[in-house]
Order: sequence, then structure tokens, then C-alpha cells
Amino acid sequence: MRRGSNLHALGGFNQTVVFDTIRRAADGLSRVEIAARTGLSAQTVSNVSRRLLNSGIIREAGIQNLGVGKPRTILQLDPSGHFAIGVHIDPAIITYVLLNIDGEVITHRAAHTPSAVNPDAVITTMRASIEALIVSSGVDRSRVLGVGIASPGPVDVDHGIVLDPPLLANWHGVALRRELEKATGFFVLLEKDVTAAAVAEVWKNREHERDDFLFFYYGTGVGAGLVFGGEALRGPTNNAGDVGHIMVDANGPVCRCGRTGCLGDAISPAVIVKVAIARGLVDANFELFDNAAIDACFTRLAHLADAGDATAIGLLDGVAQNLAVAIVTLANLLDLNLIVCGGPYWAAVSSFMTARLPKLINESTALVTTRPVTVITSDIGEDVAAVGAACLVLDTTLTPRSSTLFIS
Amino acid sequence: MRRGSNLHALGGFNQTVVFDTIRRAADGLSRVEIAARTGLSAQTVSNVSRRLLNSGIIREAGIQNLGVGKPRTILQLDPSGHFAIGVHIDPAIITYVLLNIDGEVITHRAAHTPSAVNPDAVITTMRASIEALIVSSGVDRSRVLGVGIASPGPVDVDHGIVLDPPLLANWHGVALRRELEKATGFFVLLEKDVTAAAVAEVWKNREHERDDFLFFYYGTGVGAGLVFGGEALRGPTNNAGDVGHIMVDANGPVCRCGRTGCLGDAISPAVIVKVAIARGLVDANFELFDNAAIDACFTRLAHLADAGDATAIGLLDGVAQNLAVAIVTLANLLDLNLIVCGGPYWAAVSSFMTARLPKLINESTALVTTRPVTVITSDIGEDVAAVGAACLVLDTTLTPRSSTLFIS
Repeated sequence: MRRGSNLHALGGFNQTVVFDTIRRAADGLSRVEIAARTGLSAQTVSNVSRRLLNSGIIREAGIQNLGVGKPRTILQLDPSGHFAIGVHIDPAIITYVLLNIDGEVITHRAAHTPSAVNPDAVITTMRASIEALIVSSGVDRSRVLGVGIASPGPVDVDHGIVLDPPLLANWHGVALRRELEKATGFFVLLEKDVTAAAVAEVWKNREHERDDFLFFYYGTGVGAGLVFGGEALRGPTNNAGDVGHIMVDANGPVCRCGRTGCLGDAISPAVIVKVAIARGLVDANFELFDNAAIDACFTRLAHLADAGDATAIGLLDGVAQNLAVAIVTLANLLDLNLIVCGGPYWAAVSSFMTARLPKLINESTALVTTRPVTVITSDIGEDVAAVGAACLVLDTTLTPRSSTLFIS
Repeated sequence: MRRGSNLHALGGFNQTVVFDTIRRAADGLSRVEIAARTGLSAQTVSNVSRRLLNSGIIREAGIQNLGVGKPRTILQLDPSGHFAIGVHIDPAIITYVLLNIDGEVITHRAAHTPSAVNPDAVITTMRASIEALIVSSGVDRSRVLGVGIASPGPVDVDHGIVLDPPLLANWHGVALRRELEKATGFFVLLEKDVTAAAVAEVWKNREHERDDFLFFYYGTGVGAGLVFGGEALRGPTNNAGDVGHIMVDANGPVCRCGRTGCLGDAISPAVIVKVAIARGLVDANFELFDNAAIDACFTRLAHLADAGDATAIGLLDGVAQNLAVAIVTLANLLDLNLIVCGGPYWAAVSSFMTARLPKLINESTALVTTRPVTVITSDIGEDVAAVGAACLVLDTTLTPRSSTLFIS
């Protein structure tokens, strides 16, 4: 049912619009500039600014003197006012970040995820890690707005439950949000990892140069975060973004799903490392199914390719070709021409891939987009999903979303 | 840049919300019921209703006497108040419909598209067909709100230009909107055909039972319309929905794009008919590349399969399997579990496909959606893209869209 809008809903929305406008201006803005950018009246901007100042979200940061007219007070985010914590559960690694309201990482912790995971033990570990993160940051605990958790899908976002991620052993219907709220006392939210990563990009995207893009997440599994008009497309159950079974290679191996040449298998770091060992490219003196070892081997393989080793290049060329096939399929379907890449395994192959993918994609005769496709590396780094989870905590309370305009 | 909202923007939005609420109630609603459903105040509903009555969009349709309290006047759409025309350009057929404001088709015309198309000649033909459509409907020309055109992509929606559809010979950068506006004097809009088809489903979806779905369009080409939260996802250049190069069959033929087993080739009616002729299933005594002949052969093939012919069943089983692979890929990516199917070639195979697809999709181990996938046939029929184009004319002026809430 469509709901109407009224003055009350409108007031809350305009507050988040003013906040968002200030947030995106690195050097702050005067009230006059805010009015010009938002279309709001001087009176509305003045009222909303007062509320934001009173709640410690923004601060006055000097005077702008234009020579004519009254000097203008500059309003800026108050980075010491509020903080958020982000946690990313990857099958290989659990990452913790503490962000200020500006989206800047204040403290970071990471630990390899034990290969046989017990959810209860992980929650105890997470609680201790979160407390240690806050202590080491020196931030007042009362200024932390909450904890965002990024998890592999499928997840039940509405109830904060990790449903049954194929790569997280022993996680079946874990009520992570409730358990972590109980353990920490914080507001907790849960989001699918690829969506969180995409939200991190949106949050960092001050000048709206990235309003429509696909975030390609290269981790133990692969996934995609989808952003249209500056908002993540989550899908009706918030589980959008699964790309693992896109067919990319008619001559590839048969996937466990019975299909041939699925993307997940074709470019999986674990699979690629196996081939690299078989071809004598990297050393095999360790247990292969340990995630840290796969990470080390994959990084070594990427270094060999960057150094000109023909076998390593050949192997990663195959990855690039398969990934390009998937990107063409996705760009065609979604009418997207910007692919932002990240996740824990991306950094190692970033220069290799960004040198090859644009040509492979744009020279494909299967590409039907009306504009060429650009491939860039996320500058947030491998913590992107954790950063995104923390941004979601900020985003949930502070970003304008058209749905808040409706009468509830 | 995010824009704020104010009372002026809000008034226009609430008017479209009231219209939409009345439209979705088949038997009309009282002002009290409208207020309850929209959350708007009695005063706002009263003011907005008066404006809608004055402009002939709604009418008073009897009195509701509940026994207690004041009898309530029922407000209903006025189906004789406004009309819209939809035109669908398919490589095989051009369809024209005249819709009333209730989305009901008043008059319909269709003609096979000449196989060698000259854009200028087509515009002259379209103009004559539109005038004939209006005359035969008996509708006052001044009550027609405009003409919506659904075209194969890629299109430039903002400028109303058909860019370069691979299946429309000789159409390169045709400024269809401007030309047809000049020729008819009507307001004209252009939309990609698959998006128009999806909008038709949304428009007919009175009870919001179809707020998130993928429309699978089976025409000379195949395509997908995407709907999330009751709004079509068009993509940044309005060309979303291309699914022709999704790989579905590792043992399929090599596509013109160089990939193996692309969906467009694997289930193309023209290709299927060729195989049917080669297998002696249908008669080949005519020029194969005539669209009418393909249509006739395809329908004959479907009848044979429905009648139990094993060879025909085998051939269409292959189509169902390939389509199921694509649907699994799309459902995984978009988190959608409702597939609405239609388009000119769908009707013939509708019962065959809806009997097989759900099992093929839901038993696929590649499917990761948290809910089973449902496949249904659009009840709008093969005119769905033309109906959608006309709905877009109604939609553009009359449906609540959150973007209209922002200060322009």
C-alpha cells in the first residue's frame, strides 16, 4: 500500500538531507550553501542545523568571510561526536573496524577465522574483540552508535539471522543480532557482506560520482553488491548479489550444481591455487585447505604474474577472461557501466586485472551497453565489508532515504 | 545531490497517492477509507479528491450506507475520463492499443512489421494506425493523454530515440518521439519494450501481490523487465534487461558473440523452428525468415508437444531446461522469486513451460534463493508491451513516485 506524506515525516527526512549534504562537503558548508544545494528554505536549514548541532552530529568550524554581506559560519561533521563498529565474518578472516562519523577507520583488528567454526565460541570471541577494539581506540563507549555485521548470505536481515552460508561450516540459523546485542548491549544490525561492501562505496562517494555501480567482491566466495541511484538494491529478502553460478566457461570444470564452468569455481582463489601448485608455480608444503595458506599462495602467484612469469600470467589470464564474461552478463542485464572491485583477494591481483578487464569486456561482441564499461579498484581496501557494515549503522540513522518520507 | 522536500512537492505527491489508492480499489472507496489506507488526514483527502473530481480523473459512484454515521460517497476512477495509446514495435509485429484510465484495452490493432523496414515509412504507417485506432474506438481525441511507444533496446529514453536494436533492420538513431509528436500532435514517450511489459504488470497489480518480480519477455528476441518495490528498475541509461547472452548450455551452438550456448540463440523461436523443420516436425514449404511463418511453425510445434508428440516434447524440453538455467542465474542475482512470463511467443508454450519450469528451477542445486521460485503467465496477453507503453503514459502523470517528492 502506498502511503502519503505529511509535515512530520518531511521534517525527519529534511534533517537527514541536511546531514548528508554537510557530510559530502569535505570542508564544510555555510547555511546559505546548504539551502542552495538542498532547495530547502533558509528557515528550515536553520532549524535543522540547530537540531544537528545540539545532538553533537555537526559542529561549527570557523567563519567564511566573502568580503560582502554577513560572514557565514561553516558547519562540518563532528568526527569526534559519534562512532560505529563494523564486523565482517568471512570464512577466512573476521575483521573489526571502528569508524568515526566521517567514515574514517580509527581502529582495525583482524583474525583468521578458525577452520572449524562453532557459532557460540565465535560470538564470545566477537564480544571480546569488540570491547578490545573500543579500548584500543580510546573512544568513549557511550559515543558508539552500534555494531554492523557483514555476513556471507543467505541472511535474514529483518531478524538478524545468519541462515545457512555454504562456506561457513556449522552456521545454520544463528540469531547473531540478538546474541550480539545481548553480549554487548549495543544496537546491532546484520547485512549481507556484498551489500555492506557496496554501501561502503556509496558512503565514501562524496560527489555522487558513483551512484550506479556493481561492486565485485573477491573473497573466499565471490559476490556482487548492486547500487542504483545511490542506494543499494537488496532484493525482497535482502539477499541479492549471488553470482557464483553464472556460467562463464563452456570448457570449465563441472560445478557441484551440475553446471559447467560456474564463475564461483572458475575464479575461486582455492581452485586457482590448486592449479598453481599442480603447475609447480607455488610451493605445496602445507595443508591446502587452510585459508591462510591459500591467501599466501594466491599472493605469491599474483607476484609471479606481475613479475612476468608466463605460466602465472596464463593462469590469471584465465581468471580475467572468466570474470570478464560474468561482468558482460551483469552489465547487459543491469545497464551498469562501472564495476568497483574489492574484497580480501582482490588487492593481490588488482593491477593485473584492471590492466586486462576493460579490454576483455569492452571488446566482447556480447556487450550491449550503450556506454563503455569501466573497472576500478575500491580504495577502501580489504576491510571494505567491515567498513560497510559500520557505515550501515551510520546510514540507518543518518542518510536520507525516500521511504522515510511516508507516513508510517 | 540529494534534494529536500517541501509542502509544494508534497501536495503533488499526495494527489498521486490518492489517485493510486482509488485506482487499486476495483469497487471504489469512500474518503474515510482513503484516509485510512494512505495515512493522510481527512482534510487532505477531501482537498485532493476535489481536485481529482474537477479534472475528471475520478467520479462519484454511489453512496455507501453503513447503517451508523453519515452515508459515505464512493469515489471511483472515471473510465470515460482519460485514455492513452500504446504502440509496440516488435521486429515481427507492430501492435496498437487504446486503454482507458483503468488499464482496460478499448481497441486493439496489429500488423506484421514489413521485413525490410524503412523508419520514415513506419512513422507514416504508425500515424495512420493511431488515427484509425482513435476513430474506431469512438473516443474523443481530446481525451487521449498521449502515446507510449515500446521499442526493442537499446533506446535513449531521455531523448526518445531508438538507438540501434540488433533485430530492427535500418533503425539507427531514429528520433521516434519527436517524429511521432510532430506527426500526431500527441505527447509521446518511448520506453524499452521489456520495461514497458513489466510496467503493465505493475499497473494491473491492484493488491500489490506483484511488487517484486522479473518479467520474462519471449519475442523475436528475449528480454527481462525488472520490478522492485512496485517500481521498474530501468538502470542508469534505461536499458536494463538484456539477457540474450547469458550462457545456458555448455554444449549449445556458438553464438555470434563467440560464446557457447547463449540464451538468446538457445531458445529463439526462429532457431527452434529451424530444428523442428530439420526433424520433420513442421512443414517447410515457405520462406523461413518470414516472421509470420516462424510464428505459425512455432505454434504448430507447441500444439504437437501439447498433443504428446515425443520429438516436439524433446525439443521444447530443451527450451525449458535452458530457460530454467537463465532463471536460476537471475533469481540468484536479484533475489527474486516471481517470474511473470509473456510476449508474443509465450502464449503457445505457456502451459508446457509453466508445467515444467518450476520443477527444473527449484530442483536446481544452483538455486540459492531463500524462497521457492514461482513461474506464472501474464494475464495481459501478447499485447503486454503495447499495454505497458500506454500504462506508462498514465503512470508518468498519475502514479506516486518518491522522486516527485523532492524539490526540483
